[in-house]
Amino acid sequence: MSVAPQVSLSVHPDRLLPPQPEVRDVARRIYATTKDLPIIWPHSHVPPQWLVDDEPWPDPASLLLTPDHYVLRLLHANGAELSDLGRGPEGPLPLDEAAARKAWRILCENYHLFRGTPVKYWFDTTFTEVFGITQMPSAATADAIYDEVAEQLTTPEFRPRALFERFGISVLATTDDPLDDLAPHRTLAADPTFTGRVVPTFRPDRFLELARPGWPDLARRLSEVAGVDTGDYAGYVAALENRRRYFQEHGAVSSDHSHLDAGTEPLEEGEAARIYAAALRGDVTEAEAVAFRRHMMSETARMATEDGLVMTLHHGVRRDHDPDNLARYGADAGSDIPLAMEFTDALRPLLGRYGNHPNLNLVVFTIDETVFSRELAPMAGFYRSLYVGVPWWFLDAPEAIRRFRGAVTETAGFYRTSGFIDDTRAFLSIPTRHDMSRRLDAAYLAELVAEHRLTEDEALATAHDLVTTIPKKVFKL
Amino acid sequence: MSVAPQVSLSVHPDRLLPPQPEVRDVARRIYATTKDLPIIWPHSHVPPQWLVDDEPWPDPASLLLTPDHYVLRLLHANGAELSDLGRGPEGPLPLDEAAARKAWRILCENYHLFRGTPVKYWFDTTFTEVFGITQMPSAATADAIYDEVAEQLTTPEFRPRALFERFGISVLATTDDPLDDLAPHRTLAADPTFTGRVVPTFRPDRFLELARPGWPDLARRLSEVAGVDTGDYAGYVAALENRRRYFQEHGAVSSDHSHLDAGTEPLEEGEAARIYAAALRGDVTEAEAVAFRRHMMSETARMATEDGLVMTLHHGVRRDHDPDNLARYGADAGSDIPLAMEFTDALRPLLGRYGNHPNLNLVVFTIDETVFSRELAPMAGFYRSLYVGVPWWFLDAPEAIRRFRGAVTETAGFYRTSGFIDDTRAFLSIPTRHDMSRRLDAAYLAELVAEHRLTEDEALATAHDLVTTIPKKVFKL
Amino acid sequence: MSVAPQVSLSVHPDRLLPPQPEVRDVARRIYATTKDLPIIWPHSHVPPQWLVDDEPWPDPASLLLTPDHYVLRLLHANGAELSDLGRGPEGPLPLDEAAARKAWRILCENYHLFRGTPVKYWFDTTFTEVFGITQMPSAATADAIYDEVAEQLTTPEFRPRALFERFGISVLATTDDPLDDLAPHRTLAADPTFTGRVVPTFRPDRFLELARPGWPDLARRLSEVAGVDTGDYAGYVAALENRRRYFQEHGAVSSDHSHLDAGTEPLEEGEAARIYAAALRGDVTEAEAVAFRRHMMSETARMATEDGLVMTLHHGVRRDHDPDNLARYGADAGSDIPLAMEFTDALRPLLGRYGNHPNLNLVVFTIDETVFSRELAPMAGFYRSLYVGVPWWFLDAPEAIRRFRGAVTETAGFYRTSGFIDDTRAFLSIPTRHDMSRRLDAAYLAELVAEHRLTEDEALATAHDLVTTIPKKVFKL
Repeated sequence: MSVAPQVSLSVHPDRLLPPQPEVRDVARRIYATTKDLPIIWPHSHVPPQWLVDDEPWPDPASLLLTPDHYVLRLLHANGAELSDLGRGPEGPLPLDEAAARKAWRILCENYHLFRGTPVKYWFDTTFTEVFGITQMPSAATADAIYDEVAEQLTTPEFRPRALFERFGISVLATTDDPLDDLAPHRTLAADPTFTGRVVPTFRPDRFLELARPGWPDLARRLSEVAGVDTGDYAGYVAALENRRRYFQEHGAVSSDHSHLDAGTEPLEEGEAARIYAAALRGDVTEAEAVAFRRHMMSETARMATEDGLVMTLHHGVRRDHDPDNLARYGADAGSDIPLAMEFTDALRPLLGRYGNHPNLNLVVFTIDETVFSRELAPMAGFYRSLYVGVPWWFLDAPEAIRRFRGAVTETAGFYRTSGFIDDTRAFLSIPTRHDMSRRLDAAYLAELVAEHRLTEDEALATAHDLVTTIPKKVFKL
Repeated sequence: MSVAPQVSLSVHPDRLLPPQPEVRDVARRIYATTKDLPIIWPHSHVPPQWLVDDEPWPDPASLLLTPDHYVLRLLHANGAELSDLGRGPEGPLPLDEAAARKAWRILCENYHLFRGTPVKYWFDTTFTEVFGITQMPSAATADAIYDEVAEQLTTPEFRPRALFERFGISVLATTDDPLDDLAPHRTLAADPTFTGRVVPTFRPDRFLELARPGWPDLARRLSEVAGVDTGDYAGYVAALENRRRYFQEHGAVSSDHSHLDAGTEPLEEGEAARIYAAALRGDVTEAEAVAFRRHMMSETARMATEDGLVMTLHHGVRRDHDPDNLARYGADAGSDIPLAMEFTDALRPLLGRYGNHPNLNLVVFTIDETVFSRELAPMAGFYRSLYVGVPWWFLDAPEAIRRFRGAVTETAGFYRTSGFIDDTRAFLSIPTRHDMSRRLDAAYLAELVAEHRLTEDEALATAHDLVTTIPKKVFKL
Repeated sequence: MSVAPQVSLSVHPDRLLPPQPEVRDVARRIYATTKDLPIIWPHSHVPPQWLVDDEPWPDPASLLLTPDHYVLRLLHANGAELSDLGRGPEGPLPLDEAAARKAWRILCENYHLFRGTPVKYWFDTTFTEVFGITQMPSAATADAIYDEVAEQLTTPEFRPRALFERFGISVLATTDDPLDDLAPHRTLAADPTFTGRVVPTFRPDRFLELARPGWPDLARRLSEVAGVDTGDYAGYVAALENRRRYFQEHGAVSSDHSHLDAGTEPLEEGEAARIYAAALRGDVTEAEAVAFRRHMMSETARMATEDGLVMTLHHGVRRDHDPDNLARYGADAGSDIPLAMEFTDALRPLLGRYGNHPNLNLVVFTIDETVFSRELAPMAGFYRSLYVGVPWWFLDAPEAIRRFRGAVTETAGFYRTSGFIDDTRAFLSIPTRHDMSRRLDAAYLAELVAEHRLTEDEALATAHDLVTTIPKKVFKL
């Protein structure tokens, strides 16, 4: 559509800082104190096997484009076929060079679509800061950039462990299925040549959705893996508790949960057992399954008060909005769409029971911005267990982050928020994502200083806490 | 209430641009490249007969005040009677000079009510740039301004066609009833002395609301005009398709739709036929009528995949909120009030069927800002057919437009939005409305440049696309 | 958590004004014209008895910390026990010096929690401007600040009446129960040594909630106090009207209402009478009680059209979200959480009847920001009776106020808003709260001037109206 006359690519040292000179100077001073601090990364979708194998990534597209639904979606909207971007029915496909180059070319010739999005910001920064690229991606430069990236990926400096170290990652949390034996985590922990900390996260979503096809089989597999009979509700709960312990023994600090709504209404024990039994027989209604899942959210909080796993919520997305896209490319292929959320009444049963328990940390993320000032900040400003998660997914972007701080801080301050979490599959964008967050916090704090709402000393102390003491406290690291 | 000490009126060349000097300079450079480009105007409520007749407008109030419910409402809130502003039971009345002067005076002496609103901005600019007025409207200046405007309206330079040309309008779309024979459009197209492009828009709302009083008669009239028997559902669909073709033959590029909610759930063919038959007998329930109308939204999308008419949605307004105002002054008299909207689930049935169809362009407008970042931008960032309409009605205002760009761009970029649409009845405000949009886009892009998120070259290319290639692509012009 | 290296405390003369020099200069000029104007304070929770007794406040914690749930909540979230902050089961407790010092110390050593919140802003300003404190509150300075404040509280200059005068309060409205005999107001009115105007506000919430435990007894007490038999619905209405008159005779200008939703659907007279009779027998359902309360909102508006009391709405809060906190500390102890609101359809029955009545002024407050641009501004821009209340509670904060002006002004202008209202229990924060509002209005108006949307003369006139003519008109003062 548009031909960019620009051919060179570079990133500015003051990017994302406030343009007004007096304010920018304050922001620069704040940012200078946090930019080199280690990265605490308590929620990601990076495969731990990458770090176990420490193999070179095969090509630029397979690393930077194909796995990342943030990128795929806008190319799809503009007409690209996901099959031309390396996706098959089960997710990313192995690509030969021609296919990888073709996918890469589609990205580069449509680079203008990403103007104003964080995807472009992350790419610009990754290209320049990680790979030293100096050309703006376009149809004309696609092959040259491909070659340059591909060549570097063959070098030892670009293997996963080398980058893990270069990026200064102090903790990385992966996301894992309760059935997972966590072998990669064990291997990494036992490997004296790898000094990083990589911990699993307990993600039991599919075990809590009793009406999903195949659930009875899941319950049986849970039984086998946990060594606990899941033939009744009590056994099911015990099996989940067992797997939580297993995850904790392998370093897990949190469980993660993503469902359609935030309901937490508990059931009577007998009713939970009855629904569970019906589900095992394949005889559960949709309404019963929803009631059970909400019950299990409160039950999960109860477990957390006992074992101390931090509980993070990522609710409120209509997954696979496009049935055709799901049929052709499976889940996580770009068509998840957010829904309006309600937390005040939905979380009340849970918070009324456990909201001030010293062992529970509950971090709530959302893509519905309207709840930040209306619901989450007021609740986090009262309940000891509740922290407001930083902007998630579509909202992990400069202006959305600015709006988040504007909506949350005046009610809950800085100390009831979670610290930065990126939730990404894009390993190479980690430093720029954390750096973006630090720049934006510096920018926000500098504005408060410029309006004389904080002293610069207070701003400096707060910026430091936001990337050190706060995430460590929230995630018990 | 307040006496403005200000007596002179002028507009500043840098209005709406960022005040910070470094950023303003960038914005000026961007704006300079778009400000004189032709106006593409794909949705309006301007009567095409004005251009056919090319008669002088009778007086300032009848042209600038009485037809414009954006203006009437705030005067009403402050105590003015709509009858004193030129409105009768069926809309604007012909005014004698005394009545026109009286209405005009009410506007001028209440000019302070509009401070901070775009109405004042548009008036200020229209007064100065179109009429060369140099006095601030007030009780003291009302008559003098009336005289000055009235005199100019008698000159050839102020006839509709002269202004159409002076304003640089390349395309104007009117809004028309399916029964309309589009005679004015035919006349204009056949007139060698008029070189503008004026196209109709197919607006079938009332034909899709089966429970409204008088609907069976509408169905009969549709049958007559289309020459298709609407005695059953299949005939009704065929008649609508027939009229769409007629509109296309007269230049139409889009159909426009405004209902209470955004539902698109299709019905089984038999159920649609059953409800239709019941409605013809005057025996339809409110719930059936709603189900049928939602079905017809999907059906309209199906028609669009076949004939290619762009589909625009303007849903979510409680029309005629004040029953007394409706009884006294009819529709469009200022008491329409927006409602909270849901699009993610409402549009899913339609998008699941046609959301990636190459022939469908679906542009969604809203007055509920909360859906921009949560629903519309994520959907437009995936579905090929869907574009986010720029801010509509109450949101067609400087700060709301800034919020729109802030909410949409980070998820959907610039290229999944519609380009500027004004939706106005106020012919003389067209240049200032489009100019406002161009200034605000320049301001937003300049901010991105100032924060080093875009290069200036990228910003320039994007600004150009926003008023050229983007609206042409979205509206198939 | 964080140790602030900062030890000195001061407030900057330009605080909250825009940092950009050219814009700040405009804001300074605007603010200079409003900063010393008298304070009109039409809604508060200050006990009138304070002014009757004019006794010294006992200690810093009892005055500044213990009664203020804005402050308690964040300390609670961070782990403090409300009992250590001076709260008992019925609210604030009398504190001995050790307890007061302990509570005070908890505030000071957690002062960093409030960074970025208006609580810190109000404290900073109150400490410096009212008490002349020059040390930043912290663990190290807690006792010294306590001593300094405590000593000043013993002086005549710090008694309630002296501060009332020093603060320049022209009108203060308290909030009072319909059964209240308003003795303090009578005493103050009769006292020639007190020249301030202190008026009651009629707050009948609990009389309108028929399903609440103890309601039949309330109806009986209402009967006794009003001298009207409340044995049937007609008597109940007459008794409420009687008490409204009593309040008006004691200076009241408004009634205030806070319920879960904004519904106003009227009932048939017979149905209202039937539900009322059932409630007297203790035999009312929750649904009937809700329907009756909504009916009474319209009925209250009808009363207002007759007696002229301004009607203010503060709906939409889930009171006492934490049942444990309610059980231990009673109401107003920090766990109230807002809910999403709907006003367009909820207020329609009331507005359709009385929305343009010359005697009704209806001021709507909300904590759900999403309704500002979508519902409240459009309605206030049409209905003569409706005014948009300025940001309430959690939204009474610098950025939220900026968002409010941004969301409301473009549709409703400045003249359909309420003027500043603080709704506070914190007597000493009154000047800084009103001053904050004036600074922020100056800042907003200066931005409009800087973007050439208003002239400076217009901005000056508007700023003046916002603290003089507008609140006087809205509250009939």
